[in-house]
Amino acid sequence: MAFSRVARSGLRRSGGTFGSYSNEGDVLLCEGVSIHRNPLPSLQNAKAARDFSYISSFRKINQLNMQSRGIRVTPQYQSATAERIVEESESEYDEPRYPGLEATKPGEKPRVVVLGTGWAACRFMKGLDTKIYDIVCVSPRNHMVFTPLLASTCVGTLEFRSVVEPVNRIQSALATSPNSYFYMASCFGVDTDKHEVYCETISNGGLAHEPYQFKVAYDKLVIAAGSEPLTFGIKGVQEHAFFLREVNHAQEIRKKLLLNLMLSENPGISEEEKKRLLHCVVIGGGPTGVEFSGELSDFIMRDVRDRYTHVKDYVKVTLIEANEILSSFDVSLRQYATNHLTKSGVGLMRGVVKEVHPKNIVLNDGTNVPYGLLVWSTGVGPSQFVKSLDLPKAPGGRIGIDEWLRVPSVEDVFALGDCWTSNCKLIKFTIHLQVAERQGKYLLELFNKIGKHDGGKAFSAKDSALGDPFVYKHLGSMASVGRYKALVDLRQSKDAKGLSHAGFVSWLIWRSAYLTRVISWRNRFYVAMNWATTLVFGRDNSRIG
Amino acid sequence: MAFSRVARSGLRRSGGTFGSYSNEGDVLLCEGVSIHRNPLPSLQNAKAARDFSYISSFRKINQLNMQSRGIRVTPQYQSATAERIVEESESEYDEPRYPGLEATKPGEKPRVVVLGTGWAACRFMKGLDTKIYDIVCVSPRNHMVFTPLLASTCVGTLEFRSVVEPVNRIQSALATSPNSYFYMASCFGVDTDKHEVYCETISNGGLAHEPYQFKVAYDKLVIAAGSEPLTFGIKGVQEHAFFLREVNHAQEIRKKLLLNLMLSENPGISEEEKKRLLHCVVIGGGPTGVEFSGELSDFIMRDVRDRYTHVKDYVKVTLIEANEILSSFDVSLRQYATNHLTKSGVGLMRGVVKEVHPKNIVLNDGTNVPYGLLVWSTGVGPSQFVKSLDLPKAPGGRIGIDEWLRVPSVEDVFALGDCWTSNCKLIKFTIHLQVAERQGKYLLELFNKIGKHDGGKAFSAKDSALGDPFVYKHLGSMASVGRYKALVDLRQSKDAKGLSHAGFVSWLIWRSAYLTRVISWRNRFYVAMNWATTLVFGRDNSRIG
Repeated sequence: MAFSRVARSGLRRSGGTFGSYSNEGDVLLCEGVSIHRNPLPSLQNAKAARDFSYISSFRKINQLNMQSRGIRVTPQYQSATAERIVEESESEYDEPRYPGLEATKPGEKPRVVVLGTGWAACRFMKGLDTKIYDIVCVSPRNHMVFTPLLASTCVGTLEFRSVVEPVNRIQSALATSPNSYFYMASCFGVDTDKHEVYCETISNGGLAHEPYQFKVAYDKLVIAAGSEPLTFGIKGVQEHAFFLREVNHAQEIRKKLLLNLMLSENPGISEEEKKRLLHCVVIGGGPTGVEFSGELSDFIMRDVRDRYTHVKDYVKVTLIEANEILSSFDVSLRQYATNHLTKSGVGLMRGVVKEVHPKNIVLNDGTNVPYGLLVWSTGVGPSQFVKSLDLPKAPGGRIGIDEWLRVPSVEDVFALGDCWTSNCKLIKFTIHLQVAERQGKYLLELFNKIGKHDGGKAFSAKDSALGDPFVYKHLGSMASVGRYKALVDLRQSKDAKGLSHAGFVSWLIWRSAYLTRVISWRNRFYVAMNWATTLVFGRDNSRIG
Repeated sequence: MAFSRVARSGLRRSGGTFGSYSNEGDVLLCEGVSIHRNPLPSLQNAKAARDFSYISSFRKINQLNMQSRGIRVTPQYQSATAERIVEESESEYDEPRYPGLEATKPGEKPRVVVLGTGWAACRFMKGLDTKIYDIVCVSPRNHMVFTPLLASTCVGTLEFRSVVEPVNRIQSALATSPNSYFYMASCFGVDTDKHEVYCETISNGGLAHEPYQFKVAYDKLVIAAGSEPLTFGIKGVQEHAFFLREVNHAQEIRKKLLLNLMLSENPGISEEEKKRLLHCVVIGGGPTGVEFSGELSDFIMRDVRDRYTHVKDYVKVTLIEANEILSSFDVSLRQYATNHLTKSGVGLMRGVVKEVHPKNIVLNDGTNVPYGLLVWSTGVGPSQFVKSLDLPKAPGGRIGIDEWLRVPSVEDVFALGDCWTSNCKLIKFTIHLQVAERQGKYLLELFNKIGKHDGGKAFSAKDSALGDPFVYKHLGSMASVGRYKALVDLRQSKDAKGLSHAGFVSWLIWRSAYLTRVISWRNRFYVAMNWATTLVFGRDNSRIG
């Protein structure tokens, strides 16, 4: 039947138990995966102990090794009405055939398929040598979001468009090269044996459009398909809380905030209801939660006071964290942040959320907290797509990789960014962005190198030298706390000694660092303009859309 | 019963048949309403022939004159769960009581209630003397949209936020004065006798929120509640076409356009389906339809060619008009526009739409036109709210007014902007914006004048001099046709002689004129920046939200 052959190489791994990760010096190691270390390893090593006989006889089902990889597969090409080219089935197995891109032929450029448009994926695509490779990028969104600045868009400090960059500006080959494409679609399955990914076009938020499925064959696959907010299975979070990962999250937070401000001005609202409507609760004291709380208190102190004078005394921000806020930062910086937030009117509360209801949350100790806006920011875990892939996983559920960012036990598959394990101690300490950027850069150089030595095609990289493994060196952490103040922690690990600074100078460093990391000159210009106009004219408070 | 007393002054008019409008020189006249012209008329004239006895005995129902005014009234205060203050009914009629603002007391400032946040309403509020008046503005949106630039936002030439202005920036008293408010709500009824409006808070596009109702008593009421796109009852327009009146319309058009561009790149799409997806059809050859077509062709010629090279040859724009495009413009300008649009690749089609289906429209002559995006721009008619009001109406269904913008037969009610009749020949010829602006300015000066003479309170203006009637002098019409070209028609009426110009200089005039009309320096700055960055970097094509 159709997908029985999907990735049937199963769990034939190279030995050892997979899942135990450790941090060996500065090099990240996944034990049990990369135990076959060579001074100059090659892709061949990854499959040293594997059976590749299925390449020549791929229809023979290996009963012993066959395993369902948990890939969600839609068994039939289901579309009755849309006018599309559907290939006729010609196989003896009467399997469904997908329209799409077939494997590249000899003489054609190798095709790199990238899943995702996050920071890592975009950094990778930006520098990939398009003279060597064709690129196909598959993602439900056609732009990269500069997530560290997303909190600022919720209160109108920055415009939404200033923090996003369309992928075909980042890598113009996607728009102009005859065999490179951006497909706005979700990937739902990977056949690592056939070197194919299976995709479904996105449904369009209300607009009439029937989704349909297609396939893309790859020579090399880069999985950078992001992560999802962690909710810890707490009841009501998905339904009632807002996350802060995408531009539409920020848009919804903004709309809700402005709606609540305006509703609370309407006649006939009781005091208690006014207080509830204007109580903004942030769950999670990591950098995102702290930055959002800081921006909110800034907004309240500077803009709400002038523009919503009737209700200004009712607005309140509470940040709830189970442990300590900014736990990865230096203790003096943590203290600074705590003092600063408290002084800015942000209430800090220690607590664990038990249940979320439409108008209130209940903590583990029974405390009832009414809210008008609830923002959930307790970190991220692997996405549903990553979970569904039967690839080697780290204990956190993320895809495991070796030091060359390869996914062990399969050929030509790499993983980047948030879908990488965060269980390595070092990574847990960092801003994900830094890791993502470094990984993207590392991998594009690796690809450009093996591509120059004719290792770009599927199964062809085995004799090429991969070069040095990926080494991550932490440069430091930053977080803004609002009112022109930020923290900069330049220690290289949590327990190391090093410079740390908090205050206005840090805030300038924070702004400059982010501004230089914004990917295009156009957006740099816009972000700078937004900051300048906010300073001069205050924040915009039109509720559009 | 509750609302039996609503506006029971009925149709006791001052004589003559209402509904016959004419243009007397430069002064707009509504015959049958303003036949009692005095050199210095006062509000008293309006009620010369009316019976005001109900003021002192307002519970006596005048059987002869009683008339349902068609006001939609929700009979009970329907809200079970929300915590709000509900006044107890104390009346012998057991009528529902709304929470809200009661009539102003002697010694308090008179309260002007403004329905709407369009150009006219905002121009009016901007200049109103807040030392004399308190203002309460009721509208479902908290910002003004600079509609002439809306077409540019659909293709990314301008940011959405650059063409909107929050009302509490336009009139800061709404945010800061203790008795002035902006209420984000829809008005559903007016009791002209009791001098009260009835409002319902808006439902929040998906977010959990129960609407509830309240009332606002007024001393003076200004109805500027806008208009709605005309669909002529054609089947399928509401369901499948996009309008271009609000920012969210422009957002949806943009999202649909970018989605279609990206969908058409996906593998497995047939040639025919690609053509359909990328066929943009605009119905209506007025300035909005022409400007949107021009922007679209600009976008295609400059940006689609570079950024969607795989599908660029499939993109097509067709403008369908039943008669001539830009029929109010000078014949030479019309010819220029036709040539220019044709050269830019916009197909011009003569036809009348019979039916709209999800993927195609059918014209009266049976022609079938498949489309991927359909924008409907055939002018505007009175809004449902205006239709529901039983006030004197002009034949088009809009509220009738006299030369002082008063609604005849009722006291202290004025109407502005698009809800005014467009049946006067002169108005049909103009850009509505010009009329709206002039009306707003006229009325605020009238209000400031009568306010200074203690005529601001309800029923108190009867002895104040109103001054000169409203005179509209047409300054000319403009329309952009894309590619740095525009039309400027400075004739003062359709058949008059006067200057007209088309081309690049006109385009410069068009841009400068619009830029100076954008209401705040902040937005002027943003619009200028947007134009500059579009020139340098091209248009943004991220599909967010």
